[in-house]
Amino acid sequence: MSIVIAVTNFNAEAWADRMKVRLPDHSVQIWKKGEPLDGKVDYMLAWKPDPSAFDEVPQPKVVFSLGAGVDHLIKMPNLPEAPLVRIVDPSLTTRMTEWVVFQVLLHHRNHLTYDAQQAEHLWKAHAQPQASKVRVGLLGLGELGGDAARALARIGFQVAGWSRRSKVIEGVKCYAGEDRFEEFLQGTDILVNLLPLTPDTKGLVDRAVLSKLAKNGVHGAPVYINAGRGATQNEADIAEMLTSGALRGASLDVFETEPLAEDSPLWDAPGCVITPHVAAESDPEALSDYIAGQIRGYEQGLPLQNVVDRKTGY
Amino acid sequence: MSIVIAVTNFNAEAWADRMKVRLPDHSVQIWKKGEPLDGKVDYMLAWKPDPSAFDEVPQPKVVFSLGAGVDHLIKMPNLPEAPLVRIVDPSLTTRMTEWVVFQVLLHHRNHLTYDAQQAEHLWKAHAQPQASKVRVGLLGLGELGGDAARALARIGFQVAGWSRRSKVIEGVKCYAGEDRFEEFLQGTDILVNLLPLTPDTKGLVDRAVLSKLAKNGVHGAPVYINAGRGATQNEADIAEMLTSGALRGASLDVFETEPLAEDSPLWDAPGCVITPHVAAESDPEALSDYIAGQIRGYEQGLPLQNVVDRKTGY
Repeated sequence: MSIVIAVTNFNAEAWADRMKVRLPDHSVQIWKKGEPLDGKVDYMLAWKPDPSAFDEVPQPKVVFSLGAGVDHLIKMPNLPEAPLVRIVDPSLTTRMTEWVVFQVLLHHRNHLTYDAQQAEHLWKAHAQPQASKVRVGLLGLGELGGDAARALARIGFQVAGWSRRSKVIEGVKCYAGEDRFEEFLQGTDILVNLLPLTPDTKGLVDRAVLSKLAKNGVHGAPVYINAGRGATQNEADIAEMLTSGALRGASLDVFETEPLAEDSPLWDAPGCVITPHVAAESDPEALSDYIAGQIRGYEQGLPLQNVVDRKTGY
Repeated sequence: MSIVIAVTNFNAEAWADRMKVRLPDHSVQIWKKGEPLDGKVDYMLAWKPDPSAFDEVPQPKVVFSLGAGVDHLIKMPNLPEAPLVRIVDPSLTTRMTEWVVFQVLLHHRNHLTYDAQQAEHLWKAHAQPQASKVRVGLLGLGELGGDAARALARIGFQVAGWSRRSKVIEGVKCYAGEDRFEEFLQGTDILVNLLPLTPDTKGLVDRAVLSKLAKNGVHGAPVYINAGRGATQNEADIAEMLTSGALRGASLDVFETEPLAEDSPLWDAPGCVITPHVAAESDPEALSDYIAGQIRGYEQGLPLQNVVDRKTGY
């Protein structure tokens, strides 16, 4: 059986080596534009491949996306008909939860204020509401959102979540569907965006949406956090709302364009914390285990796990 | 029945009002130095009282400490023989856990590096170990340490703890007694000090102790975090170890002398995060409920809860 790797900005050789170790009875090739492949292809491992990859590579049986998002593949008109499998990496989920819990606590515990005071050697306490008075709302309740929701509830926050399809998570108030979206926003003090990028979510989180967040929370103005996909947010709106105080703070790991432009107003916007798309970088060893395991299972006749529904985009 | 309030730096009137609301059938007085009290005293609510309070106030049946520590009372030679009750406030525990989880994640997620990069508009990712590779060790496994340990384990850290008396906490490697102390330190990457201040713990965490922490962790040099009592640490040693890189970071909420002196080297020590004793400020309403509940129970013949053992000091 044959594996081909077609990636941009990823280390193709390292991926090839990891697959060879795990599947020594498979051939592994790296696709390069204009270089014909040797023989047919059973599996394609892809991350933001050059669009010509799907024309040049023979039709594979399965396409694996090597990162959490699949929007980069779905939008390609020549994506093969083969099942498209997305990454569900438990280590990715725990890393994302670390980042989300950290950023929620950062704003909840007034870290930016204490940090500024430390620079001035200033000893001054501020009123500190309990987590149980603060309402955190997760946009997206899949693997990532669900785990973050449970961890935040364990810390003591009031946790709610919104998703397209209805979910049940113990200790988390679950809203589903467009007609519950506004109600969800109105009861949220800290909004955590973990949505996938789909035609429905592109540019969704803009001034209109952020203006519906609770203004009467124990911390005052609301906070916006995003570690999902940058293109689901409107950054000009966010920067303006931080500057005006309509948002008390933000933590952003993803952006409409990455790297974030050096002259983006977000870098210096008040209350804004920026990390360079590091919230949940996967461990390539764990991902390689996952993909090799799926290939082994598939060859034994087991169904593929986490196949993307092309209509919903995740 | 009669209650007297003897406090320094606390709002005595507010405490009196809260007790009157909860125990309207009790008299409540505020002690002031040199002003005789009216009649006998059943309960004394104390926080760092002037030493003359115990000479002037008639012997109470119970003394309640209005803050988490009781060292300020135990060291007073004229402390009454009456049972001394300490605060165990569930809201205090959850607040402490918020702070501890936040500070552990701050160092684990390299926040200080990303914060410095943000100031320079610099987009640069750094290797991020998983929490499961990082060993957090709690010094003290009482109410506070136990809860923080469980929350950190939920986030995914390897969690151990050391206490004088042996404990069993699911998912936490528990060490007990002096002869296991060194072994505990050697297996710890991030040390969290939640010890009470007793003759045994005064100045305990110094260069000798901190030098025993693991140097081979995935993050490199170890991190020291303290939200217990400042006098259990040697701040000159900590500042020097931060400067030399023997410590990768520290988060300190408590200090040998508070407020922290404006010229303390800790304010600007590399990797050092300072908060002004705000990790677990109690909610006075919750504490008032707790004390009134204990008084009601005591008057119904129930045993007092959380009476301090004067030998161990907690």
